[in-house]
Amino acid sequence: MNILSENTAFGGMQGVFSHDSKACNCEMTFAVFVPPQAVDGPCPVLWYLSGLTCSHANVMEKGEYRRLAAELGIIIVCPDTSPRGKEIPDELTNWQLGKGAGFYVDATVSPWQLNFQMYTYITEELPALIGSHFRADMERQGIFGHSMGGHGAMTIALRNPDRFKSCSAFAPIVSPSTSDWAIGAFKQYLGDDKAAWRAYDACALVEDGARFPEFLIDQGKADGFLEDGLKPWLFEEAIKGTDIALTLRMHERYDHSYYFISTFMEDHLRWHAARL
Amino acid sequence: MNILSENTAFGGMQGVFSHDSKACNCEMTFAVFVPPQAVDGPCPVLWYLSGLTCSHANVMEKGEYRRLAAELGIIIVCPDTSPRGKEIPDELTNWQLGKGAGFYVDATVSPWQLNFQMYTYITEELPALIGSHFRADMERQGIFGHSMGGHGAMTIALRNPDRFKSCSAFAPIVSPSTSDWAIGAFKQYLGDDKAAWRAYDACALVEDGARFPEFLIDQGKADGFLEDGLKPWLFEEAIKGTDIALTLRMHERYDHSYYFISTFMEDHLRWHAARL
Repeated sequence: MNILSENTAFGGMQGVFSHDSKACNCEMTFAVFVPPQAVDGPCPVLWYLSGLTCSHANVMEKGEYRRLAAELGIIIVCPDTSPRGKEIPDELTNWQLGKGAGFYVDATVSPWQLNFQMYTYITEELPALIGSHFRADMERQGIFGHSMGGHGAMTIALRNPDRFKSCSAFAPIVSPSTSDWAIGAFKQYLGDDKAAWRAYDACALVEDGARFPEFLIDQGKADGFLEDGLKPWLFEEAIKGTDIALTLRMHERYDHSYYFISTFMEDHLRWHAARL
Repeated sequence: MNILSENTAFGGMQGVFSHDSKACNCEMTFAVFVPPQAVDGPCPVLWYLSGLTCSHANVMEKGEYRRLAAELGIIIVCPDTSPRGKEIPDELTNWQLGKGAGFYVDATVSPWQLNFQMYTYITEELPALIGSHFRADMERQGIFGHSMGGHGAMTIALRNPDRFKSCSAFAPIVSPSTSDWAIGAFKQYLGDDKAAWRAYDACALVEDGARFPEFLIDQGKADGFLEDGLKPWLFEEAIKGTDIALTLRMHERYDHSYYFISTFMEDHLRWHAARL
């Protein structure tokens, strides 16, 4: 593991690191904020998965999570959204596929399957690295994310309910199988057979019996992607008749940006802290 | 005035605007955060002046000021650090001169004097624009800044003690006349006669009789520029025997970055709010 940068903030340490990923067959970068409480003992870990076009850096710079993470004593891990490097397949004119658009799936179709193993990377390889290099209590993990990363957080929580104690999302893609934002990428990564998509679709997972106790979702009503890309009401529909609890908050005037995310970041960190 | 962007955040509005500046003879960009309290009436105005290489955007994205500004009901204005555009003189290999390095002075030497009138821009032209376009109580103004912008805030406060009720700085250049970071630019903007530099040097201004009631300065001890560029102890020295009060806080492990600034942003906003 290489240290790319370390900066003191709010009494803790914001670091950026890289390592050779076996899952993704390339060097991967990620950010970790370690709160001051880690001096005294292991701290719970909260995973933040970012949205399309983002890297680890967007939320690290604009998310405003450090103040609360330092107060609550939570390690925040911010992975990248895809493999990177000049050897990595990409489609330069399509921001919804390839670099910056890993969708947290394990691709099965060429040429993507050699590197785009983001589900395995996020759920297996990177947790092992975090657990061995940081004072992390891996028995207390939560996960959240934004947009494509909200999709990632919800699907990963639904498939790993014993590992994660909490899940929340900002403006998530809850139904990639029907989202203009995701269909193109899912076809390329997973093939045309939509049965294979269901393991990476929060609504389909619930329909197929996956369960997670409760979700917090914040969504801006002035988000230009609400109708075509996000559609949180589909998840509200999907959980009807199940024992899954959903707190869905719709916010007037808020859009899809980090101005929206940073505004509600405190609520999310407190949501996770109460459950970790 | 053109609206470049407007985003709801913390119940208020973060906007980015541009206008044709007479002082700088070019289009200038600036950011304004308007807190929710502006719906009910005029709010006090706090000016944030940025450091070398920065534009309005750095603090807007990384400064984490909106939460407190919304709580305290303060308008935050973040100007650019220099004139911009392809017609503007610059030295491409020198980040301490030209674009991004206006030093908040009115240049008197060619070719800079046609555009680099940042002192007049910040103290006259932009306040008039803010006062006429926003619900701003211009009787209640404070000013702060970072590095070169800390220099700007302190010199502008010292020269306009009746206009500003409060002043603070993160890692300011307190003595540009003796700072490796500023001497080159001052020579080009103001000429070789160091007598002309004194109006833009916080230590020299105090020596020459300028007064401002009190300053808050935060400085990281792990700031790599402390010894050559910043030297806050020179200001501590300069105010000895005057009635100027200085709260100078030196912080172990903190550097010159926005990780440092964002950590202490709350303290600064509360400092200003108590005086506005």
